[in-house]
Amino acid sequence: MPASPIRKLAPFAVAAKQKGLKVYHLNIGQPDLPTPQEGLDALHHVGRTVLEYSPSQGYQSYREKLVGYYAKYNISLTPDDIMVTTGGSEAVQFAFMACLNPGDEVIVPEPAYANYMGFACETGAVVRTITTKIENGFALPPVEEFEKMINERTRAILICNPNNPTGTLYTKDELLQIRDLVKKYDLYLFADEVYREYVYADEPYVSALHLEGIEQNVVVIDSVSKRYSECGIRIGAFISRNKELMAAVLKFGQARLSPPLVGQVVAEASLDAPQQYHKDVYDEYVERRNCLVEGLNRIPGVYSPMPMGAFYTVVQLPVDDSDDFCRWCLEEFSYEGETVMMAPATGFYATPGAGKNQVRIAYVLKIEDLKRALVVLEKALAAYNAR
Amino acid sequence: MPASPIRKLAPFAVAAKQKGLKVYHLNIGQPDLPTPQEGLDALHHVGRTVLEYSPSQGYQSYREKLVGYYAKYNISLTPDDIMVTTGGSEAVQFAFMACLNPGDEVIVPEPAYANYMGFACETGAVVRTITTKIENGFALPPVEEFEKMINERTRAILICNPNNPTGTLYTKDELLQIRDLVKKYDLYLFADEVYREYVYADEPYVSALHLEGIEQNVVVIDSVSKRYSECGIRIGAFISRNKELMAAVLKFGQARLSPPLVGQVVAEASLDAPQQYHKDVYDEYVERRNCLVEGLNRIPGVYSPMPMGAFYTVVQLPVDDSDDFCRWCLEEFSYEGETVMMAPATGFYATPGAGKNQVRIAYVLKIEDLKRALVVLEKALAAYNAR
Repeated sequence: MPASPIRKLAPFAVAAKQKGLKVYHLNIGQPDLPTPQEGLDALHHVGRTVLEYSPSQGYQSYREKLVGYYAKYNISLTPDDIMVTTGGSEAVQFAFMACLNPGDEVIVPEPAYANYMGFACETGAVVRTITTKIENGFALPPVEEFEKMINERTRAILICNPNNPTGTLYTKDELLQIRDLVKKYDLYLFADEVYREYVYADEPYVSALHLEGIEQNVVVIDSVSKRYSECGIRIGAFISRNKELMAAVLKFGQARLSPPLVGQVVAEASLDAPQQYHKDVYDEYVERRNCLVEGLNRIPGVYSPMPMGAFYTVVQLPVDDSDDFCRWCLEEFSYEGETVMMAPATGFYATPGAGKNQVRIAYVLKIEDLKRALVVLEKALAAYNAR
Repeated sequence: MPASPIRKLAPFAVAAKQKGLKVYHLNIGQPDLPTPQEGLDALHHVGRTVLEYSPSQGYQSYREKLVGYYAKYNISLTPDDIMVTTGGSEAVQFAFMACLNPGDEVIVPEPAYANYMGFACETGAVVRTITTKIENGFALPPVEEFEKMINERTRAILICNPNNPTGTLYTKDELLQIRDLVKKYDLYLFADEVYREYVYADEPYVSALHLEGIEQNVVVIDSVSKRYSECGIRIGAFISRNKELMAAVLKFGQARLSPPLVGQVVAEASLDAPQQYHKDVYDEYVERRNCLVEGLNRIPGVYSPMPMGAFYTVVQLPVDDSDDFCRWCLEEFSYEGETVMMAPATGFYATPGAGKNQVRIAYVLKIEDLKRALVVLEKALAAYNAR
């Protein structure tokens, strides 16, 4: 696996801090908002004296409570449709291991979450990307573009909705077109929906689990990491109504014994977080998004679509090589003792040369820090282009 | 992956309990002894308000403290030689993924921990087993037997020492012979040492990390699960002095983002458990082992070697088909309302037909329950053979 551009930047960020610079981290997906108090309380009151294995598929009580969570989204499941995983990452691994043989192809719209490529690499599956365009707000390409890529080795389509890195929310029509394609070619549809809570559109969220006629083909990858700001507990879920597939995945689950016990306790309690917790978090992200995107679009030569989900946006900058610009910001630039760290977008594309003038920016900083980061970014762009 | 014989028995155990039978679980590796109070206290006092990602390689503070732990065994490491994993299971996966290509062969003495086969299956590596014999106390076969199995696809030897499922502790001479072989053919030596704490011999424990001349070839798989009776926190370690290998493994670690945060907090605090904790746990296992093995060898037709490590023994029974006998104990037998559940040994062998008259018994039950289980087992054998 190649090192991602973000990771290659890490030593420069360390060096910048050692020089005494304040670095605004626009590069990361670690929410800064608090974990629900219900989750922290459960952690502090774990009454067990032996921290033992949990069942390989996760605790029954937690899976039953998750059924209630999904029901609020009009998604009808049974506990047996849900396998608790070690983060959403393991759910992706299980999907690839259980559904794809070495050489099998999975079609992924790019820019895409970079670790999909890593997991594919681990299983010998081949990721074939289909490029989405910033000028279309990273909407899914027409279904004919997908169809052109399908061959006898194609086994699955993988979407992330709302999308990391772009923040794009797919429309019902886009999802219905994917549904038809999945049905026509009997593919798996892997849907990474870990940002479901952060949808800024007025219509109800459309999950892959809502799509009729492909119930046996859909795998949803989920995680509590972003939902409750608890990335560190490593609790996700692999969800499918396909009983044969769930039985196969259980074997992989048994091989790794069990998902984290304490994480499940925290995640189960977090489901009791009051409506106010979700409203506060949601409102905060909306305010940050508006502040960030409006601020970005006011900088000369910068363009960001208005993301309708998650807490990221992919932004076009007036530079030729965003890898170099991001490194330069850390290594050679500062404004009043401050600089910015962003994720060069090339790490989210498999197509060589794609995204060279783009970066991913996450809005997991406080409003005042975002505002200040925008000032620093504008100064950086001016200085970089005046070299 | 085939379902293991233990898992196939699970429904019979459920049915037996539903009939009101008391089932002595001699089949599992979940210690019943308490987690150190230091670990539980740390859990109850986690002061964070955001349960965030930890570094992919694990917390620096924990890895530094582990260096001190290994130093007590005369194993000299730096924090950079240690990557924290999600259980020992993930360390095995990382070893296979980083060191083996599809079709590469790894030699494993059998009977062996069944999940090795599962992880090999996931990565397309081929496990080639070399059979150890109960009549030799499951000692390693002569080095010539290993050498016969080495071909151009052989990349590694995997040992578990002390051994699960047999409880065998390899001697220094056996390990030196393996060392010579590893050096001669430039193989990896994967050493699963998660039972290091439970060694009942008088000589100091010999770790693969003590072997001179193969420092770049050794990978140690470790875990706190058995050491501190905290299987559920999912904290293990991948240990190697090979810097290139550690860099490759870090990439797999970055793809899955991070090991569990809370588990690391518990594991780090558990390193402070007082000597008395270890002494109490150790003494308890020694007493149980003696009680169990002496009791087994008093039953007509039963033979168990005296295991010198871990908390298992593989036992020969006067039956032709231990899969059938174990099922029969749960489904058709009871003695004064009680029965026993054991792990048929066939699940630990890859060689067809091997271990058909053997079972694995774990001594993770209280002495009085072990004594009672021995009575029930003796009655079961008599009744089974009198059918």
